[in-house]
Amino acid sequence: MGIDFGTESGRVVVVRVRDGEEIASAVVPYPDGVIDERLPGGPRLEPDWALQNPRDYLRVVEKGVPRALKAAKVKTEDVIGIGTDFTASSPLPVKRDGTPLCFLAQYRKRPHAWVKLWKHHAAQAEANHINEVGRERKEEFIEVYGGKYSSEWFFSKVLQVLNEDAEIYDATDRFIEAADWIVWQLTGEEKRNTCTAGYKGMWIKGKGFPSGEFFRALHPRLENVIEAKVGTNFFPLGQKAGGLTAFWARKTGLKEGTPISVGNVDAHVAVPACTVTEPGSLVMIMGTSTCHMVLGTERQMVEGMCGTVEDGIIPGLWGYEAGQSAVGDIFAWFFEHGVPDSIHREARRLKVPFATVLEKLAARLKPGESGLLALDWWNGNRSVLVDVDLTGVLLGMTLATKAEEIYRALIEATAFGTRTIIEAFESKGVAVKSLVACGGLPEKNKLLMQIYADVTGREIKLARPLQTCSALGSAMHGAVAAGRAGGGYESISEAARHMAHVQKLTYRPRAEHHEIYNRIFKEYQTLHDYFGRGANNVMKRSKALRRKQAVN
Amino acid sequence: MGIDFGTESGRVVVVRVRDGEEIASAVVPYPDGVIDERLPGGPRLEPDWALQNPRDYLRVVEKGVPRALKAAKVKTEDVIGIGTDFTASSPLPVKRDGTPLCFLAQYRKRPHAWVKLWKHHAAQAEANHINEVGRERKEEFIEVYGGKYSSEWFFSKVLQVLNEDAEIYDATDRFIEAADWIVWQLTGEEKRNTCTAGYKGMWIKGKGFPSGEFFRALHPRLENVIEAKVGTNFFPLGQKAGGLTAFWARKTGLKEGTPISVGNVDAHVAVPACTVTEPGSLVMIMGTSTCHMVLGTERQMVEGMCGTVEDGIIPGLWGYEAGQSAVGDIFAWFFEHGVPDSIHREARRLKVPFATVLEKLAARLKPGESGLLALDWWNGNRSVLVDVDLTGVLLGMTLATKAEEIYRALIEATAFGTRTIIEAFESKGVAVKSLVACGGLPEKNKLLMQIYADVTGREIKLARPLQTCSALGSAMHGAVAAGRAGGGYESISEAARHMAHVQKLTYRPRAEHHEIYNRIFKEYQTLHDYFGRGANNVMKRSKALRRKQAVN
Repeated sequence: MGIDFGTESGRVVVVRVRDGEEIASAVVPYPDGVIDERLPGGPRLEPDWALQNPRDYLRVVEKGVPRALKAAKVKTEDVIGIGTDFTASSPLPVKRDGTPLCFLAQYRKRPHAWVKLWKHHAAQAEANHINEVGRERKEEFIEVYGGKYSSEWFFSKVLQVLNEDAEIYDATDRFIEAADWIVWQLTGEEKRNTCTAGYKGMWIKGKGFPSGEFFRALHPRLENVIEAKVGTNFFPLGQKAGGLTAFWARKTGLKEGTPISVGNVDAHVAVPACTVTEPGSLVMIMGTSTCHMVLGTERQMVEGMCGTVEDGIIPGLWGYEAGQSAVGDIFAWFFEHGVPDSIHREARRLKVPFATVLEKLAARLKPGESGLLALDWWNGNRSVLVDVDLTGVLLGMTLATKAEEIYRALIEATAFGTRTIIEAFESKGVAVKSLVACGGLPEKNKLLMQIYADVTGREIKLARPLQTCSALGSAMHGAVAAGRAGGGYESISEAARHMAHVQKLTYRPRAEHHEIYNRIFKEYQTLHDYFGRGANNVMKRSKALRRKQAVN
Repeated sequence: MGIDFGTESGRVVVVRVRDGEEIASAVVPYPDGVIDERLPGGPRLEPDWALQNPRDYLRVVEKGVPRALKAAKVKTEDVIGIGTDFTASSPLPVKRDGTPLCFLAQYRKRPHAWVKLWKHHAAQAEANHINEVGRERKEEFIEVYGGKYSSEWFFSKVLQVLNEDAEIYDATDRFIEAADWIVWQLTGEEKRNTCTAGYKGMWIKGKGFPSGEFFRALHPRLENVIEAKVGTNFFPLGQKAGGLTAFWARKTGLKEGTPISVGNVDAHVAVPACTVTEPGSLVMIMGTSTCHMVLGTERQMVEGMCGTVEDGIIPGLWGYEAGQSAVGDIFAWFFEHGVPDSIHREARRLKVPFATVLEKLAARLKPGESGLLALDWWNGNRSVLVDVDLTGVLLGMTLATKAEEIYRALIEATAFGTRTIIEAFESKGVAVKSLVACGGLPEKNKLLMQIYADVTGREIKLARPLQTCSALGSAMHGAVAAGRAGGGYESISEAARHMAHVQKLTYRPRAEHHEIYNRIFKEYQTLHDYFGRGANNVMKRSKALRRKQAVN
């Protein structure tokens, strides 16, 4: 069984150990969803806040597991193990027994008592401070994170609690990732995972966390945060955290003691579910943004990575993560703000969605035929420049430019962004021979996948949509937690060989198009470096002016 | 009486000499319009061709003059003079008696026998050759035209005739601008004007045309083109070319011998009609493109001018012309290709045109608030870069960018383009203290005019729409041709003092906005120079690739 805790809902899947076939699934929406306007029954939140209610996670287990079991029509004793994965970094403050502070009446109306969801963006000042101090002290985590620690990550959020509500900080016995908290709830054991800690929490295998001196430099009261409120013991992926408690066995109908693996991150757990357990294949999880993951046999400092973590994805290998901060979001922006009446009319005439008309028209164009070139920075640049203040560019318009040409240029721009990441990996010897795509976008958009193949010059295979992919990955880790003796597998690689599959459909690069895209990519690189590496900081100046004018 | 020969029609106006009041007007469409697909009853044309039928010009006089006279209810003898203006350069080949070759049965099906309209763009190869030879020989006209002779101009078109249909070239006794041809028809005198010759025909006051050596270097058979087929006598604006012939007096109901001034160019004749007869005021004729005209007391070589002609606009002064190759055209492009459904829906709800919604939303924004910046090169750059291969840029997009922000950024970009031209003038001592706008755009778009005032830091007064403006200017020149003795004026300045007026409405720059626009204009200049002056020729390379891919 795999349980994937997403942003708006949780998904429980029952998967056949032999071949990974999904027998049944159940999706349970979070009643409180993303809390970004006001606390349930409580005060309004500041802009950029995004919280969650941990009770919603428990509800997914309580409602979703029995429902999935029932739909699967399997016997309770046939469930040999459970794996879970979570969005990250989504930390929460809890008491020593695991009770979230927001469950306690005296803290319920305090925003800092709740889970800070991965997309809580109100800790930018804290992130800036962390980066400043980290760089000054030449802390290793700065390198590991490609030069920048994000406002979305664990310690930015912990520091925000301390800065803004010291009483909550004091009342907190443990700051813990929701990924680890749910495992603690189900097993009764606080066993934290290496993936979330490595990618979001400054933890480095064999070295642990930065020193108390570093934390003191951040804030005098943070000096002992690791020992006092975090802990130093982390467990590799696939390891059994414990067995299901009697309480949760009763609640769910599962057998007490069913093995449960340590927690995982949704994107990372998807990698073996995409069949990737060895170096050479890049997994692209493509949705509103894209997350890129690849494995390496040694540690390399690749520019602009989101993280480089030993055992971070597959035990025994270095897991590299990179990302593009807007992909599907750029197309969604264009669909909402840039599609003219003529396209809508044509769609009504043909009785198809307007995106279908756009895709069809854009697919008829040859590379370079529009003369357009874009920089895909509508939401900044995550890799390789790690700069949220960069903005989008569209160049080459004439009076004859059409909407489908702009749409295609936007797709191409995101493909160039991916190629930039691939070239950064390969320049440091991290091989990227082929691509595996999963997520919502690849299923929906054939043109997009073909352009990615043509731009990167690499074959792309399709896995499954992300939520099923992550849930399958979690189930695979559950099978590993069970072990061969328990009816599962010895390792995640073995599990992947049996349980993970890609679709037959493969997108192959067309040599002629690839050759043209090589030329256009050079132009992309020149603009990328001109606007992104300091030659002309017009984007930052414009954004600063924009902020000023918007306030005035 | 003024007659303005436009691109699709001609307009005849009857104007009161005392105060310039328009008593009546008549518009006569050209039956053959712009001939750009096939000759009337003849073969198909190549792309980029644009011809006209001179018979349509005669029809404007024949139908339009009686109609305007009737509507004006004035007596024939009260018409003291006639002035005309034309699009330019629009040359045609004629026999010694003025008969257009396309009127003769044996040449009627030969495209080169017809008028080549100003926007005939098929002589680019000839223009390139002229520029190459001109630059090599350091011909003065290269400087006069800001570094480049256009494919739209007189000798590019004459050379194309020779290159592509030598028989027509041989059969041609005179190559003549339509502006001069119509005056020849009405007066029986071939008296050519200094304006068309100076701005389009390499003619320089006191020096005449380039040498026979230059023309021989262009093409051996062109050596004597001036003496044989063009002539060397040119007459200043406002001078009487002759009196109306008995034939045309009968046709129109006007008095035989009515004074007719020499021909003029539509844009240039509008300058005194905008009240501008002295240095210091820039006239902007704003429509699909913008034409800028300003007067100076001496000759200066200003970068990227379309022309610098002594007596070219007002006798006794240097007339400078610059231009932006797309202004209204960029907004029209955006209206057609970039306006999303939400704006259309709002317009339907409010029962107003969607452009009204866009303008209203865009007007609410402050300078710099959108963070967007554009380069206004959707149709290349005429001044100051003189480069048709430059293309548009839009920079600064985020996921929150809205259509009205893009619209405003496009308006601002065209204002920055105008400011670039103003600064080029002022850097050479040609003063631009205030602006006068005429044409269709200024009347329709208050936001645009206010942004131009804020960006340039100068007051803008509004004249009349272009066609009425040009027709009034022509009538003013008719009054000068009549002279004081004939009931008119001694000079165009005197005529302007009485007959030309601007509207009361004045757009004044707002200091706070101007200060912000100064900052954004600096960013515009940096991008302008980066993409326009060779640091990154991506636009040219993309355009070349686009042409290649469109053909393949």
